[in-house]
Amino acid sequence: MTQDIDQLAINTIRTLSMDAVQKANSGHPGTPMSLAPVAYELWQNHLRYDPANPVWPNRDRFVLSAGHASMLLYSMLFLAGVRKVDENYNITDEPACGLDEIENFRQLHSRTPGHPEYRWTTGVETTTGPLGQGVGTSVGMAMASKWLGATYGADLFDFDTYAVAGDGCLQEGISHEAASLAGHLKLDNLCWIFDNNHISIDGDTALAFSDDVLSRFEGYGWNVIRVGDANDTGLLGKAFNAFKAETGRPTLIVVDSHIGWGSPNKQDTESAHGEPLGEEEIELTKEVYGWPKDAKFFVPEGVRERFDEVIGRRGAELSSAWQEKLDASEHKAELEMLQHRGLPDGWDADLPSFEADEEKGLATRKASNKVQNAIAERVPWLIAGSCDLTDSTSVRLSDADQYEPGSYDGRQVHFGIREHAAAAACNGMSTAKLRPLWSTYLTFSDYGRAAIRLSALMELPVVHLFTHDSIGLGEDGPTHQPIEQLMALRAMPHLDVIRPADANEVTEAWKIALDRTHCPVAMVMTRQTVPVFDRSKYASAEGVQRGGYVLADAEDGDPELILIATGSEVQLALGAHERLAADGIRSRVVSLPCWEIFEKQDQSYRDEVLPPDVVARISVEEGATLGWERYVGTEGAIMGMSTFGQSAPFADVEAEFGFTVDNVTKVAREVAERAAKSTT
Amino acid sequence: MTQDIDQLAINTIRTLSMDAVQKANSGHPGTPMSLAPVAYELWQNHLRYDPANPVWPNRDRFVLSAGHASMLLYSMLFLAGVRKVDENYNITDEPACGLDEIENFRQLHSRTPGHPEYRWTTGVETTTGPLGQGVGTSVGMAMASKWLGATYGADLFDFDTYAVAGDGCLQEGISHEAASLAGHLKLDNLCWIFDNNHISIDGDTALAFSDDVLSRFEGYGWNVIRVGDANDTGLLGKAFNAFKAETGRPTLIVVDSHIGWGSPNKQDTESAHGEPLGEEEIELTKEVYGWPKDAKFFVPEGVRERFDEVIGRRGAELSSAWQEKLDASEHKAELEMLQHRGLPDGWDADLPSFEADEEKGLATRKASNKVQNAIAERVPWLIAGSCDLTDSTSVRLSDADQYEPGSYDGRQVHFGIREHAAAAACNGMSTAKLRPLWSTYLTFSDYGRAAIRLSALMELPVVHLFTHDSIGLGEDGPTHQPIEQLMALRAMPHLDVIRPADANEVTEAWKIALDRTHCPVAMVMTRQTVPVFDRSKYASAEGVQRGGYVLADAEDGDPELILIATGSEVQLALGAHERLAADGIRSRVVSLPCWEIFEKQDQSYRDEVLPPDVVARISVEEGATLGWERYVGTEGAIMGMSTFGQSAPFADVEAEFGFTVDNVTKVAREVAERAAKSTT
Repeated sequence: MTQDIDQLAINTIRTLSMDAVQKANSGHPGTPMSLAPVAYELWQNHLRYDPANPVWPNRDRFVLSAGHASMLLYSMLFLAGVRKVDENYNITDEPACGLDEIENFRQLHSRTPGHPEYRWTTGVETTTGPLGQGVGTSVGMAMASKWLGATYGADLFDFDTYAVAGDGCLQEGISHEAASLAGHLKLDNLCWIFDNNHISIDGDTALAFSDDVLSRFEGYGWNVIRVGDANDTGLLGKAFNAFKAETGRPTLIVVDSHIGWGSPNKQDTESAHGEPLGEEEIELTKEVYGWPKDAKFFVPEGVRERFDEVIGRRGAELSSAWQEKLDASEHKAELEMLQHRGLPDGWDADLPSFEADEEKGLATRKASNKVQNAIAERVPWLIAGSCDLTDSTSVRLSDADQYEPGSYDGRQVHFGIREHAAAAACNGMSTAKLRPLWSTYLTFSDYGRAAIRLSALMELPVVHLFTHDSIGLGEDGPTHQPIEQLMALRAMPHLDVIRPADANEVTEAWKIALDRTHCPVAMVMTRQTVPVFDRSKYASAEGVQRGGYVLADAEDGDPELILIATGSEVQLALGAHERLAADGIRSRVVSLPCWEIFEKQDQSYRDEVLPPDVVARISVEEGATLGWERYVGTEGAIMGMSTFGQSAPFADVEAEFGFTVDNVTKVAREVAERAAKSTT
Repeated sequence: MTQDIDQLAINTIRTLSMDAVQKANSGHPGTPMSLAPVAYELWQNHLRYDPANPVWPNRDRFVLSAGHASMLLYSMLFLAGVRKVDENYNITDEPACGLDEIENFRQLHSRTPGHPEYRWTTGVETTTGPLGQGVGTSVGMAMASKWLGATYGADLFDFDTYAVAGDGCLQEGISHEAASLAGHLKLDNLCWIFDNNHISIDGDTALAFSDDVLSRFEGYGWNVIRVGDANDTGLLGKAFNAFKAETGRPTLIVVDSHIGWGSPNKQDTESAHGEPLGEEEIELTKEVYGWPKDAKFFVPEGVRERFDEVIGRRGAELSSAWQEKLDASEHKAELEMLQHRGLPDGWDADLPSFEADEEKGLATRKASNKVQNAIAERVPWLIAGSCDLTDSTSVRLSDADQYEPGSYDGRQVHFGIREHAAAAACNGMSTAKLRPLWSTYLTFSDYGRAAIRLSALMELPVVHLFTHDSIGLGEDGPTHQPIEQLMALRAMPHLDVIRPADANEVTEAWKIALDRTHCPVAMVMTRQTVPVFDRSKYASAEGVQRGGYVLADAEDGDPELILIATGSEVQLALGAHERLAADGIRSRVVSLPCWEIFEKQDQSYRDEVLPPDVVARISVEEGATLGWERYVGTEGAIMGMSTFGQSAPFADVEAEFGFTVDNVTKVAREVAERAAKSTT
């Protein structure tokens, strides 16, 4: 093997990827083969990254947005000798991704799943696979770098973010939102590498794609550089240097590549994209690479060491110099707290408690604003943004500057009308340990849903804040009135959905949200005014901490009927409860703001709140009925929405669909009577 | 009032809009005020539209993508004298939107809801309001025009589609997908009008938006025209003429406008966007317009007539000339059938029936392909597309050409990796009465969810086809394995979600889908092979027509235990059923492919399938557990997913999460024993 060590290393990335996919009999070999020189040049000669300290806060980020090419990343993690970090952020002596893991590609419990998974494999900076998510997330990482630099000093934070995108990523709508936002924000620390290989799953990209990418990205205010040959590491190096020298614009490097490079029969074809090459073709390709054709998972002598010598040595120097700076910094303690997702002592000292106000009331979105502001005062790294609905969703921080070029320490982000990018950017900011929240109307959570899912999958404590949470928003009508969104969010694993009933439940909800270090929260708020309940008459809002609680009870604590409600409908349940009491019907009102937390309570608490022998139950929630059987059972009544809404003033809409105290009382009576009959 | 009649008409649009919003005390006056000349010039002098026949199939389409400006559209419908069409496509003598409706803007049951609603107000070509949906849908309309023209003759079909987009529409990711697709397809019959008013809800668009829209759209291969003044109808006319003369490219007309034009204190401010101007400002503005300041909903003499003289006369001539052509056409009967959402006699004559094959089996996606092809042979206007997953989702039509420039009669659409645009374009094609289906993996239904919702809200019989429908897809791992998507789709009103268990259920599912004239269907299919059940041993797949049915029963028809499953998990339920039978435990297997249809069956059928006294029940579905309590009740067991999945070969993943016959049998035994105890 007469090739120089760098070429050997590049071919090692290629052959490991081919072998892993072949052994797994599943995966995507073609892109790791074509982009091996790109990854190699970037990691070895540009990326400020310390394999021995992969959680160094100022490391450059490498995002494989084309997540199906996961073997490219795993090969790099292995060859660069990235070390595994445990759950407590301690660096271990184990490799993040050893050769054994590569040989176990796509097998159960391996660290090498089909697509890169954040928190599963050290060195994976974000989960990718759903196309476009990586580029969206990368914008948040770049934003975080700017924010950290502006806040704590550019000598401490100036990391760059690189994202490798395929044509799929650039076809997805999120790429538009993300690129447009990055251009607007002049994120010159962001570099996307477009793998221009002209092949997608169906065949030539020309089947569906004719964009002039250069013109498109110039329209976003990006610097666009073209590298005509993915194998030309010299040109690639120049392109990365040009990116680093650029100011005021993000950079797109368009790299012309050949998928499955070197494969005599599969290069430049869709068959190299998503299936193993086959043993025979692998042998032929290894011949092209000057590789021993029978060797599997072969790592030539000197290759691993070459990484230690270059990225390893450079990274160690950079990260230890940084640590010295940190040690000398006045911000050390705060930054360590931030990096460990801690919160300042007394962060919740000023959280508002709201006086009872059953007449005038307060929209929960507005209560939320007061709480957010109290938190923002004490938690400097809380960042609030909205999708052109800053005041509508009440996320304006009263003392915050706008986050924009020239004031990157601002904490009020105008994401634009870009819900998908907003959610993804919050994921990115969260990977850098900021505490981001973004907001839109609940209906439009649909637009960001794929990125919300990733926050749940990555266990990132992002706050997704949604207002205008029911038909109660009124005149805007069916297009804006959420029906199914609330239950659809509840169906998502590892996402806590909280819909507070009044201002004091809002305060409790925010305590939960901030307390979460590894779980996103969806906060669901009203547009319309709701009463602030008299907590001297009803139970304390602290019950929110258990997901659900008895808000009002039958006098003897022995209800014959349970009304269960969330959010703005709790007032209807309470109204019915009082009327029923006047008629001698013993009812209980359960406020159930967070199903996920309630489900985690022990059985005895749940039975205490919802005694199994009380089968006469009614749920009241202005959303899809699906799912409420969990609490109402088969004997009860579910008051919800089975159709889309209507455009009208909110009281008219609510009356139209039966959401009045009168009607809840009527249904409650019927259920109580039915239950009384069935037991006698 | 000395202004010429055209200016009077333009100011009438403006003042009606201002008055309606003021009276409703809710709405968006600013854009109707600024765009009144644009709408007027377009409708009067360009739009091929017959107000007396608003369902004329070859009419040009006008889409108000900026749906919040609904009063602009309602004013046009009123002034142009558009007539109401009833549910049976009959044109009535009533106005689609009379002055009384305008005075009832945003009130319950009015024809003037907050955002334009398709099928609710004649003349509204598509529901808009969720930003970007209108432009997405417009691409499908333009595609349909090309397809109809190429298939039935350009003398019959050559309609143009105009869409008015705000900055919000162009910021949304869907606008990228849609514009990129339209440019690729060279849809020169598509014209977007960008209302470049520099104002969004939060304030100046510069807060969040710096795109060079011209460069961006040139990157998509569009012709871009700039009109520097929205009040200059002469320039606007030239721009529309340039669009009509253009070949081979869609057109974007960038119109510089002033939101709230004419309002002395609110023009060019965000306060003109989304709230009433206020009585005082309305008076001041009416003065600017030379309008009687106290008159409300004032329509000067001659204005209505002016519309009759221009668009009315032109439209009548065009539509009657068209009708003559249709009457002479060999395609008349077929086109009338198409327009009424009919299907050719015998359309289902060749639908495959699949022989039992419990060994080798057949993935439901593959069975679906056979059924689709049988339908496509008989229903010429079935159009199938995918998002770069044509063969993965098995939607390739064996005899179809690709839909592309030069073969617009093709029926195989390559939407590109653009799920959101694909779903929206299908909505657009469906408004033109084609029968479109599009496909992706179930997980990525999230990307198109907002457009799927609109198909449900608009009652469009689009087929949304999703494959790779569970953790059973295997190695691709958690990012690709749907968990919550199935239940989240079920939560959506007016969408039938069907998850067939085997090939013969697939055939039945397609019968349902085609039979729907006013309801979209989500088809949910496996990647992996599943048995084709022996229907001589089990019940007929025709039970799918009732949503759920008894597939296998206890020998005596008196089960002590019911196993309920969908899709690929039905085989597990059957396997357990047979083992339980061997042990003398009497179980029933219910296949429940479509909850929505099952819910619509009468109580007696539902009780027959799920006898209320059999409380020992188990559900088996590889998805979110939320919702299953509806069928399993409080005594049963729900076998589902409460976490995200894992990357591994599918059998390993299924075993990891307990989806094996062994485990289902074990759980079933436990449930049966528990139930036996509680009854003794």
